[in-house]
Amino acid sequence: MASARIVIVKSRLLAGLRAALGDRHVTTDPERLASVEVDWTRRFRGRALALVRPGTTDEVVATVRACADARIPLVPQGGNTGLVGGGVPHEAVVLSTARLTAVEPATVDGQVTVGAGTTLASVQEHARMAGWAFGVDFAARDSATIGGMVATNAGGVNVLRYGAMRQQVVGLEAVLADGSVISRTSGLLKDNTGYDLAGLLVGSEGTLGVVTRARLRLVPPLPRRAVALLALTDASAAVTLAAELRRRLPSLLAAELFTDAGLRLVLDHARLAPPFATHAPVYLLVECGETEQDPSDSLAAALDAAGFDGDALLEADADARERLWQYRERHTEAINAEGVPHKLDVTLPLDRLAAFLGRVEGVVDAAAPGTRTYLFGHVGDGNVHVNLVGPSSEDEAADDAVLRLVLELGGSISAEHGIGRAKARWLAADRGRPDLAAMRAIKRALDPDGILNPGVLFG
Amino acid sequence: MASARIVIVKSRLLAGLRAALGDRHVTTDPERLASVEVDWTRRFRGRALALVRPGTTDEVVATVRACADARIPLVPQGGNTGLVGGGVPHEAVVLSTARLTAVEPATVDGQVTVGAGTTLASVQEHARMAGWAFGVDFAARDSATIGGMVATNAGGVNVLRYGAMRQQVVGLEAVLADGSVISRTSGLLKDNTGYDLAGLLVGSEGTLGVVTRARLRLVPPLPRRAVALLALTDASAAVTLAAELRRRLPSLLAAELFTDAGLRLVLDHARLAPPFATHAPVYLLVECGETEQDPSDSLAAALDAAGFDGDALLEADADARERLWQYRERHTEAINAEGVPHKLDVTLPLDRLAAFLGRVEGVVDAAAPGTRTYLFGHVGDGNVHVNLVGPSSEDEAADDAVLRLVLELGGSISAEHGIGRAKARWLAADRGRPDLAAMRAIKRALDPDGILNPGVLFG
Repeated sequence: MASARIVIVKSRLLAGLRAALGDRHVTTDPERLASVEVDWTRRFRGRALALVRPGTTDEVVATVRACADARIPLVPQGGNTGLVGGGVPHEAVVLSTARLTAVEPATVDGQVTVGAGTTLASVQEHARMAGWAFGVDFAARDSATIGGMVATNAGGVNVLRYGAMRQQVVGLEAVLADGSVISRTSGLLKDNTGYDLAGLLVGSEGTLGVVTRARLRLVPPLPRRAVALLALTDASAAVTLAAELRRRLPSLLAAELFTDAGLRLVLDHARLAPPFATHAPVYLLVECGETEQDPSDSLAAALDAAGFDGDALLEADADARERLWQYRERHTEAINAEGVPHKLDVTLPLDRLAAFLGRVEGVVDAAAPGTRTYLFGHVGDGNVHVNLVGPSSEDEAADDAVLRLVLELGGSISAEHGIGRAKARWLAADRGRPDLAAMRAIKRALDPDGILNPGVLFG
Repeated sequence: MASARIVIVKSRLLAGLRAALGDRHVTTDPERLASVEVDWTRRFRGRALALVRPGTTDEVVATVRACADARIPLVPQGGNTGLVGGGVPHEAVVLSTARLTAVEPATVDGQVTVGAGTTLASVQEHARMAGWAFGVDFAARDSATIGGMVATNAGGVNVLRYGAMRQQVVGLEAVLADGSVISRTSGLLKDNTGYDLAGLLVGSEGTLGVVTRARLRLVPPLPRRAVALLALTDASAAVTLAAELRRRLPSLLAAELFTDAGLRLVLDHARLAPPFATHAPVYLLVECGETEQDPSDSLAAALDAAGFDGDALLEADADARERLWQYRERHTEAINAEGVPHKLDVTLPLDRLAAFLGRVEGVVDAAAPGTRTYLFGHVGDGNVHVNLVGPSSEDEAADDAVLRLVLELGGSISAEHGIGRAKARWLAADRGRPDLAAMRAIKRALDPDGILNPGVLFG
């Protein structure tokens, strides 16, 4: 039951927001709030006090100030495609970036400046129209927004080549908790003038500021491609070969690993023909890209030079490349057909990745006997998706065992999804007390009243 | 005249440091202090209370704690090759990183972990021995240390391809002002677990922590090279062509611009033959690198595709490439022979670089008539070195006019050298009040007593 004071504070806040943004863009209609109170996985649910849709940076400032004055938490929300509950409100105002979609034309040197609410697909299309490409891509491209991708340092399939979002951001505009606007979007590629505030905001999950605009670097389009599927004797050989290829092939775009257990599941589920006459314990899928020249020859030469002599398929034709990718890409649906998996998104140091892959099934089996473990991921950047089928949704014994193994080997409990609310209880174990204390000090310094996305990161 | 309290504090501090580090590594000998009290340009001078040389991270912790307890400032110093006075002590203890030189062998996947005192040349050599290369290079490689390079986010000639130091750092160990050690050096390429403290420390110029170790990514060696020297009608054409080449040539390593005034000076000073039969207003020097294949053909094809039809020289042979580079590299000595230049290191947004190059001479001439202006720089990343010959050392009218023009066009007053003490008075004008307030809040949060490198950045 809300106290009289809270009711008064809330009604004053709403009146202030309506005065600043207009009635149309401030709503408390329960039906409209419902859509922002739950994430798309339906796992995280909360309660919104209001939904506001500012159309300009000034209106974001007005929103932040109104919430700060009322001491009411504010949760920024983009495409609501996050996986860790970081955009779900808990008695908070939700600031939707849906109207912050202004796009400035790409510059001749390959940079584009977009509003936080611009979708990834829209940025990719703007890049393409200007003769460039964007370095980040993933499946939720039609919903995920640049603001959310900046806030979570989103990754995807091309991190090996281009890095994650932090490496694409040339400049940011953001509103801090005190309503001040930091802005550096003139597109400087070299800029040593004090602390990298933009880099700090990337990955801060909405806890330090509301991103309103981003200036992004574009990358050269690479229309000529070659894909190879390679059969290997063990995970260690796959890790070593991926490293050798990275050293020998500047054109390398992706290096993906999966195991025979996953391949058999995919063959069965998707009714695909096996790639080779005999099965191997581990497979590596690599892709190279060039602007003009077919990269097949250099990929074949690099495999020779690296001493690889196992079964291999190498394709340059688009349809044939797509067929090879199916063995990797259809893992998710094949695993989902087995049951509701526990999905863990972890990174290992590359020099301990093989050790992790060798030990994880034993660790899972000891914690939750009978669990089926399916492993695949971006071996080029140490990111493994651990899928556990068998335990009930509530039974986290196997999950905990995997994360403990990750930490023992110096890995990270979150490769690309972030901490949000879901993993806040693991953050201290992962980062250690000095890191956490420094993070908390920065949070207090920039948001002393804890207005921005409370509960995220620090629990 | 030191007060009795200060003398007591200082003698207690020295006794504490000697107990922790041993007498040999704590000195107050004026002759040895003299070498750390002045920077290598001899422009910045200060006074050191003591020079300490910790050999381990624990000894750095002891040093930081002792200074914090005594409220005596601490200035970290690496190779002392900085250009903005950021490593010069003012009544402070100097912490030399000279003994922090432990190197762990490069991993199979191309990462190397080194102590802060390791020189750039040593890292390059370790990379080479392991079959890799390091992505940052510049002239002071035999003295500059990784700790200083991290603290200043050092750049150099290959930023266009690999980024500056921030992009090479996979993990850092650093001691914060409270003596706590943040450490994440297991080499994670994907890691979304809270704030990017390592990225924040890069470029913080010793004001937030003392870097003790860094884990660095290595890059594939590119032994096959091609260099082209291109004559252009104006700066705008050079900027546009460089952007086109970046879009068409993933192998592009460098894109350097200079003007006919600079070329004539170089030809005269170094007694070189002119590259072409006729002079052009602007020249562009580009270099491409590949692992296996000679990049000459793809460079020539990209020039054609970009519609370039001016005078050009294209060389793949090492000696011939070196001869082309001379026209660019001998600018510094040719300008120095003209007089003591004022050197400004600025970055412009690439889409305003041509406007800057077109206006800067007029602005200089209005502020200090008769000044000779020589422009060259890394056009690929917007970094221009503005050299002014004529005004006396004390006369900063032309410098100020250039920096005002830079700010008017949305540029940065420091591309790669940093702020230090030299440019602290310009920082607020460059970054704006909200940025500066956020930086100060972060500084206060992590170093409330202002122990680490006071005076740097904030004046």
